[in-house]
Amino acid sequence: MHGVHLTADLSGCRDPANLLRDGAALAALCEQSARDAGLRVVARQFHAFAPDGDGGHTGVLLLAESHLAVHTWPELRAVTLDVFVCNRASDNTAKAQALLDALVARFEAARVARQRLQRALVP
Amino acid sequence: MHGVHLTADLSGCRDPANLLRDGAALAALCEQSARDAGLRVVARQFHAFAPDGDGGHTGVLLLAESHLAVHTWPELRAVTLDVFVCNRASDNTAKAQALLDALVARFEAARVARQRLQRALVP
Repeated sequence: MHGVHLTADLSGCRDPANLLRDGAALAALCEQSARDAGLRVVARQFHAFAPDGDGGHTGVLLLAESHLAVHTWPELRAVTLDVFVCNRASDNTAKAQALLDALVARFEAARVARQRLQRALVP
Repeated sequence: MHGVHLTADLSGCRDPANLLRDGAALAALCEQSARDAGLRVVARQFHAFAPDGDGGHTGVLLLAESHLAVHTWPELRAVTLDVFVCNRASDNTAKAQALLDALVARFEAARVARQRLQRALVP
């Protein structure tokens, strides 16, 4: 078994939907995008760093296939995204890529740094 | 600002404390290890994949510094660990390494594959 872990680090985000500050909208987008990509959400947790919610947010979706994590820094117009999927019963790589691409597009970032890790679960 | 993301993929786990199947023990270990490393836990979410809890678990800790994620596959004696920290107010790399090392040690794995990503948040 193996897995693939995709990351995208975004800066200079235009963020037309105010996702960097709006935790509820960010959570809803993550859930919908995961479902649209064919991944199964089994639990979620989001946290707002400012008491009034008008600061950065951290969120995760626990997936049957592994996880999605997002962190926002509105004061820096920056976001990090992680999508990790294991490829056990089937190859979920295309679903992970579709989820990441869908999310990246919504932030309208000036710069996107992507990385890809192979996770060797049982060498 | 930048961040560091450490991963460890473990297989052949002896798992003397039954952490691969005991979600409550796994969650408690993660929380205690994060605090011991000097990281601040702001929220957590764990999920058991088998109805009786006797299967794999997925868990995350949301940290003030970013996140920890763990996935277990008891039937494969395998675990993946991720620790991501941003280094904004201070350099949290040593804390991330300490947390990962503390967790890796507890599973007594035959094989540990480690990777390290630099996350460039604002190039």
